[in-house]
Amino acid sequence: MKKLLLCFTFMCIHCLSQAQSSPKIAIAIHGGAGTIKKENMTAQQEQAYKTVLQEALKTGYKILKQGGSSLDAVEATIHVMEVSPLFNAGKGAVFTHDGKNELDAAIMDGKTRNAGAVAGISTVKSPISAARAVMEKSEHVMMVGKGAEQFAKEQGLEIVDPSYFYTQKRYDQLQEIIHTEKQQLDHSGSQGHIPAQFPDQKFGTVGAVALDEDGNLAAATSTGGMTNKRYGRVGDVPIIGAGTYADNNTCAVSATGHGEYFIRSVVAYDIAALMKYKGMSLKEAASEVVKHKLVDFGGDGGVIAIDRQGNIAMPFNTSGMYRASMDINGKMYVGIYQSK
Amino acid sequence: MKKLLLCFTFMCIHCLSQAQSSPKIAIAIHGGAGTIKKENMTAQQEQAYKTVLQEALKTGYKILKQGGSSLDAVEATIHVMEVSPLFNAGKGAVFTHDGKNELDAAIMDGKTRNAGAVAGISTVKSPISAARAVMEKSEHVMMVGKGAEQFAKEQGLEIVDPSYFYTQKRYDQLQEIIHTEKQQLDHSGSQGHIPAQFPDQKFGTVGAVALDEDGNLAAATSTGGMTNKRYGRVGDVPIIGAGTYADNNTCAVSATGHGEYFIRSVVAYDIAALMKYKGMSLKEAASEVVKHKLVDFGGDGGVIAIDRQGNIAMPFNTSGMYRASMDINGKMYVGIYQSK
Repeated sequence: MKKLLLCFTFMCIHCLSQAQSSPKIAIAIHGGAGTIKKENMTAQQEQAYKTVLQEALKTGYKILKQGGSSLDAVEATIHVMEVSPLFNAGKGAVFTHDGKNELDAAIMDGKTRNAGAVAGISTVKSPISAARAVMEKSEHVMMVGKGAEQFAKEQGLEIVDPSYFYTQKRYDQLQEIIHTEKQQLDHSGSQGHIPAQFPDQKFGTVGAVALDEDGNLAAATSTGGMTNKRYGRVGDVPIIGAGTYADNNTCAVSATGHGEYFIRSVVAYDIAALMKYKGMSLKEAASEVVKHKLVDFGGDGGVIAIDRQGNIAMPFNTSGMYRASMDINGKMYVGIYQSK
Repeated sequence: MKKLLLCFTFMCIHCLSQAQSSPKIAIAIHGGAGTIKKENMTAQQEQAYKTVLQEALKTGYKILKQGGSSLDAVEATIHVMEVSPLFNAGKGAVFTHDGKNELDAAIMDGKTRNAGAVAGISTVKSPISAARAVMEKSEHVMMVGKGAEQFAKEQGLEIVDPSYFYTQKRYDQLQEIIHTEKQQLDHSGSQGHIPAQFPDQKFGTVGAVALDEDGNLAAATSTGGMTNKRYGRVGDVPIIGAGTYADNNTCAVSATGHGEYFIRSVVAYDIAALMKYKGMSLKEAASEVVKHKLVDFGGDGGVIAIDRQGNIAMPFNTSGMYRASMDINGKMYVGIYQSK
């Protein structure tokens, strides 16, 4: 009888706490990691980045607050950063060696582990929406090049002339890098080599992870690739498990950094695996991968990650990462450098 | 003094056993998994498959025996299967919906975790050699489409007319599938849907994993993709961590099966993660992923895997998988169905 009472009491307290607490929602975003130093930024530049980060964050959070899905939230959040020329995704995409823009994106649903990815596309205004269409409207996970563009067109997504992605700033960056490369005749060919003077200009990404009120996680990442890239290079962004991953049982992750190292380290899934198999917390797992394993391996970058309890981790091993989050208590955070 | 003697004795026995045992070498290969049933095969067909499997296996084993690297062994092994029209890789590649052949491949070095992958190429005779060139001669991990072909050409790899990949058998398979699709108007679009009557014709792969006398692991996978595929679809083969993975600290894995499920499950790296984080043996980890996790998720296929001790695992959850291995004792195994 005593046992029964104890059990009943426990259940009541449990039910009460469930009823009292409103559903948890949270979101985190990034706009790329790299050698981003305060001394190289004007106050206006800082403010411009922070404004778009906040706008993107609030767009996703509003959807979550209204009971929308984490998938809708991360897609809408990425849209805001894709149309901004500040970030290397969508409108702000960097140029390939041949003076083109080739964009990649991926999205993953933590509830079903459905996923969609596109790579090397030049005519779809929103690569993240193309990735979502691949996930939801096709039997495939990944589509590349002209085929992916054709599919996006058939799905009614907005098609633009490749010139839409032209921005003077990115084009000038390409010319500068090509000029420097010619001067240095730097063709070492070692895996992952990057000219030391352009660590922050060669890659960049935007990403979002979210938890909705149904307890579902989602992750999305979009990128304009690597400045001066050749040969249809594809980085980690559209590689499920490397740049993008989501599973309700562990976490949702979006990565940003030197893609080759992130692919070889299976970064996003490794964080999930450390939680699942080693019992690490989200913070421990994300930190272990980004601040220890990637550092030892030589991979620069960072991740944003969220778990089903709404815990958020945003570790990076570079001098900066554009990032923002809204936690389960509705508290907003926006940061660029190591110390905010 | 006693302690010192004990220690000395222990070391001597240790050194002795090291000196006595010759270096361990081993190799395992696959030629695709699917609904491969004995009742649907003639004795001649069986023999034809077994002959190529043995030739491929012996090619790789000879390299290992002569002190060659596991990378050289897996590449040479794949070459044998790529030039055979029997397997869906290289010469035997299946056709896309548009009547083209688009090939993918990946290779990974367990010592350095360097990796190379190509996807959607139509003019390079050996996709696996293109993947190796990406790994060794570029700063990238993955290249797709025309860019990958251009890179392969610049590296002096053999370029062929796309008609090289034409085989009547594969073309007839495409026509049959298109005809059936039209009849059924089967466009459900659910992720991973495959017409039930063509489970074994829609995908196929070849792969090899090896351990060399220096204790280095390597994995390689090559495929002609999925019959009737559209939109530049890319499967798991060139996705590092999904279809191909190698790390001396855990294992080398090459997968074959329904690629979409293998990507979403990060199959190859998951086996490594179970060994690394849960302390499972190679056999336990490979079996857990293929026979339990993939089955629960609905993913058909199998893997071949090897660890640094030369243990080999070749689990699959379909009715058959073309496979062969040569273990550390030089014992050969060749199998097609569940029970050899």
